[in-house]
Amino acid sequence: MSEHPRTIRVIGIGTGDPEHLTLQAVRALADVAAVFVLDKRAETADLVTARRRICEAHIARPYRLVTVDDPPRERRPADYAATVEAWHAARAARLEAAFADGLGTGEVGALLVWGDPALYDSTLRILERIEARGRLALACEVVPGISSVQVLCARHAVPLNTIGGAICITTGRRLAAGWPPDTDSVVVMLDGDPAFAGLDPDLTIHWGAYLGSPDEILVAGRLGDVGEEIRSLRAEARARHGWIMDIYLLTRRDAGRGV
Amino acid sequence: MSEHPRTIRVIGIGTGDPEHLTLQAVRALADVAAVFVLDKRAETADLVTARRRICEAHIARPYRLVTVDDPPRERRPADYAATVEAWHAARAARLEAAFADGLGTGEVGALLVWGDPALYDSTLRILERIEARGRLALACEVVPGISSVQVLCARHAVPLNTIGGAICITTGRRLAAGWPPDTDSVVVMLDGDPAFAGLDPDLTIHWGAYLGSPDEILVAGRLGDVGEEIRSLRAEARARHGWIMDIYLLTRRDAGRGV
Ligand SMILES: C[S@@+](CC[C@H](N)C(=O)[O-])C[C@H]1O[C@@H](n2cnc3c(N)ncnc32)[C@H](O)[C@@H]1O
Ligand SMILES: C[S@@+](CC[C@H](N)C(=O)[O-])C[C@H]1O[C@@H](n2cnc3c(N)ncnc32)[C@H](O)[C@@H]1O
Repeated sequence: MSEHPRTIRVIGIGTGDPEHLTLQAVRALADVAAVFVLDKRAETADLVTARRRICEAHIARPYRLVTVDDPPRERRPADYAATVEAWHAARAARLEAAFADGLGTGEVGALLVWGDPALYDSTLRILERIEARGRLALACEVVPGISSVQVLCARHAVPLNTIGGAICITTGRRLAAGWPPDTDSVVVMLDGDPAFAGLDPDLTIHWGAYLGSPDEILVAGRLGDVGEEIRSLRAEARARHGWIMDIYLLTRRDAGRGV
Repeated sequence: MSEHPRTIRVIGIGTGDPEHLTLQAVRALADVAAVFVLDKRAETADLVTARRRICEAHIARPYRLVTVDDPPRERRPADYAATVEAWHAARAARLEAAFADGLGTGEVGALLVWGDPALYDSTLRILERIEARGRLALACEVVPGISSVQVLCARHAVPLNTIGGAICITTGRRLAAGWPPDTDSVVVMLDGDPAFAGLDPDLTIHWGAYLGSPDEILVAGRLGDVGEEIRSLRAEARARHGWIMDIYLLTRRDAGRGV
């Protein structure tokens, strides 16, 4: 390993509002020599714009923009686990090569992550793989960012938890398997088609799309009353924008009231 | 109701590092006329210092500091639910009176919340009660802040979730009742005495105390290997500081590895 490591900063940028950046993120950006962009193909125009604006506003010197596309992924592999493993290894190798080429020893590079880097994002896992390979000396730093969960709650001005209650953050696919036991509050992310079928209509829902952006949409109410409205607003917005990012909090009604 | 409402901004300030503030929080602070402090008696010296520094650095005009102490709480009430309800109502009435006295109509007041306002904090619930009382016209705004959950993950450079897995955020008391089913990642907050008894020693733990402050302590490893070290570090630090704030993430080992 080289003795002078390259520094990689994984910086959470919030969910679209340039003012979601923390002062720590602003400072972390100032001296970067290169910004690495993972999987450009998967990006929406709004994400590209948000990132470009942040770089222009906060990087205080000329910097390089290095794009690292994901390797192609086999859609119907015979051996699922082995194929996914090989795919992740190839991603790590590509990013490692980009760091080696795009960054001098002692220089600082940045990866800008939507929301918070700890939440449903693969960047930290790829870096862990590069470190495990042990070929390139890296000093990694993580700067937390405002997540979509927090923006959802802030815009609706609601707490995430009931008093002393547990919170579950999960995916649409997992919620379809059933409401988590002993939990009053469930946040659902990555739900490509919220059906709300099989859920108690007396749940309270707080839903938000394009949170933090000028296109933000918010709906709240009793699930049985507003579920259909959300589904049709969602379909309409998705058709108009070509994409959608949305998230919702489900709460058992009367949970924790008064105590 | 008055036609010119007072504006109340609930501003998440992060967990002790003044650079956890977002640019949105900085802007939200600039024009406040009064800062309201809830339950001063419960505050640690470090919280008071962190808040004072933030106000001095970011409020651009002379402002008033208004302290609203919690009403005394009956420790062994005969009717638990009714007593707690009365206590919450009394808290709301005190804060309402403080807003009415301490803020002119059209003025902006701030409540600074440790971490994120949505996570295990009562401020939003008290404001909801004031709004439900309907006596004082308030316009409430919430500014999300970096939570201790995020700082824990950032400082350890680990993701919160396993790939596609659910996350449970809970309290020490609830975890004692058992590991939540179908969950690989559990974050425990508000645990006054982490015993780790009854937990699988093969769990991975990422623990952090005084996160974001110069006194930060981090320990990670296999629970069976580092659990006792954490317990003794914790007891020693708590005795030295007179208080402790700590949080930990438990992950099933090998959960989500390779997929
Ligand atoms: C791959 S995850 C990334 C989450 C991100 N790291 C965070 O902290 O919010 C993408 C999911 O986050 C949620 N999400 C992200 N940004 C959002 C936004 N601006 N509005 C609504 N939901 C959002 C959606 O549930 C989306 O499916
Ligand atoms: C009443 S809750 C408030 C949480 C806060 N709203 C947040 O977003 O982090 C207090 C709990 O948060 C966690 N916590 C808050 N600040 C912390 C810090 N600086 N270091 C470690 N844990 C912290 C601890 O688990 C503590 O018991």
